[in-house]
Amino acid sequence: MAGAFAFKGCQKIRGAQIRVLLEAKDFFLFDCDGVIWHGENEITGAAKVVNALIRRGKNVVFVTNNSTRPRENYVNKFTRLGFTDVMLDQIFSSSYCSALYLRDVVKVRGQVFVIGCEGLRRELLEAGIPCVEEADDPDATIYNCDLTPDVKAVLVGHDDKLTFLKLAKATCYLRDPECLFLATDNDPWHPLSGGRILPGSGSLTAALEVASGRKATVIGKPSRFMFECISSQFSGVDPAQCLMVGDRLETDMLFGSNCGLDTMLTLTGVSQIEEAQEYRSSDLSTNHSYVPDYVVDTIADFLPAFEEIEEQNDD
Amino acid sequence: MAGAFAFKGCQKIRGAQIRVLLEAKDFFLFDCDGVIWHGENEITGAAKVVNALIRRGKNVVFVTNNSTRPRENYVNKFTRLGFTDVMLDQIFSSSYCSALYLRDVVKVRGQVFVIGCEGLRRELLEAGIPCVEEADDPDATIYNCDLTPDVKAVLVGHDDKLTFLKLAKATCYLRDPECLFLATDNDPWHPLSGGRILPGSGSLTAALEVASGRKATVIGKPSRFMFECISSQFSGVDPAQCLMVGDRLETDMLFGSNCGLDTMLTLTGVSQIEEAQEYRSSDLSTNHSYVPDYVVDTIADFLPAFEEIEEQNDD
Repeated sequence: MAGAFAFKGCQKIRGAQIRVLLEAKDFFLFDCDGVIWHGENEITGAAKVVNALIRRGKNVVFVTNNSTRPRENYVNKFTRLGFTDVMLDQIFSSSYCSALYLRDVVKVRGQVFVIGCEGLRRELLEAGIPCVEEADDPDATIYNCDLTPDVKAVLVGHDDKLTFLKLAKATCYLRDPECLFLATDNDPWHPLSGGRILPGSGSLTAALEVASGRKATVIGKPSRFMFECISSQFSGVDPAQCLMVGDRLETDMLFGSNCGLDTMLTLTGVSQIEEAQEYRSSDLSTNHSYVPDYVVDTIADFLPAFEEIEEQNDD
Repeated sequence: MAGAFAFKGCQKIRGAQIRVLLEAKDFFLFDCDGVIWHGENEITGAAKVVNALIRRGKNVVFVTNNSTRPRENYVNKFTRLGFTDVMLDQIFSSSYCSALYLRDVVKVRGQVFVIGCEGLRRELLEAGIPCVEEADDPDATIYNCDLTPDVKAVLVGHDDKLTFLKLAKATCYLRDPECLFLATDNDPWHPLSGGRILPGSGSLTAALEVASGRKATVIGKPSRFMFECISSQFSGVDPAQCLMVGDRLETDMLFGSNCGLDTMLTLTGVSQIEEAQEYRSSDLSTNHSYVPDYVVDTIADFLPAFEEIEEQNDD
């Protein structure tokens, strides 16, 4: 591909350029929110693009830092929004990968204290990892509550039911240096409709890092671990054949860079092309890892490329 | 004093050395928790020391990052624990100083959204600063809740009733660049009895800093602002005549250094002398600001010095 794009880095591509790229790559990694959907609304054309890639025999996987739902729910959501060909094993969420990390990498023995949504706990339980059961006692405080003796890991994800007590308990568990400290992801915030924003797992993790004086191991993007999960599930994944498509420079593009993948920013989500250009012109070379190789307005821009390919094939 | 202590920095002092120091200083600033009491228990001898200093005509003030109670409650607590001569105007808490900052420095016009305890809100209301009233609606979420239009500051203190919704609301308010972002203090955690620890305001502030992408202005120690409050209330305060006594290197000793005060670490609280010595031998010169000038095991070590002074006066 290098020949086709002499000035790599932040190249806005269209038409024939997209066609060449789609033909060159075997393996497509998509972020979800801001890339293929916004909450409960498909980004127009995204389902057609994903279905077409799958039908053409391309490998397609979804890598999402969203830890709030188990993968089964994702399958339903994909179907509901018209992504009819997506199967369970194509979904790599930070909750699923956290479960894999706890079970297969650190082989945790003991219970996990979860700051997170029910979906995260379900993903852990399905992997056979016991989670601390929290009694819903409104009178409990950190002064009088029970602490579970065999907690061997604290895992922080997005938690819209966060309370001070949960934070305080997690801080107490982390006093034991043998208790692992993991975060599903480090996303600082998420956009909501109407201009509101939602604190992300990165925000809750920061609170716990300060209170405990420790640093969390991050499972989700931009950490390489999700790519390791993909590589161990799909044999023969060649980074040179992959394209990572996302909407957030600090997670998706950095993840791609960290894993040696070509990256594409789509402008339907959080990051703007101007931010990418700023990173590109930065003197700080570490900032260059945030720069996408390619930029599209929306992944619906892939559609004309498919049509061109159809026409060529018809010729 | 310099002549008396050739090797300044972390000098463990006793007996006559303490007497010389007490005679040389006019103005004593004490941190509270870990210095004069532990929670509801006086540190043995502390009340005698404080009462004796006050009766000898020394200026004594209390500078605490604890933002959970209004100053009236402190007066009661002082009396209850035997500090019978302490008056309201000797108490400088981070909640009181936050109210002064909002009223007199930034002259906030509009409401303040408070993450903190009732005591912090009371201190603001007494200074005439309106705080957002939070309805206790268990069904409210960041998706459906009302946001108050004229919030001009977010103030974060210790909040044992923190919820995700409070954090999310604060994050939304901070999207307005004209909305100030303040923290009563930056303490990362606090020790509890039985080996448990409590996340401090610094932990909650970190969560909000990450979610908002902004940095909070810190009112409490180690920021100089509390000393400015003291100086404007007591005329003619000379830093050279002050001694700051505290138990935490990163707040109390740094505060003293920042304000040009001599500092004394007492070993009845959070920090150990070994940590102070490590800072002293650090190559990083900024670390030297954490090093106390003097160290005592407990401020009860002041008592023999008073007796010596009595004896001298009797001679």
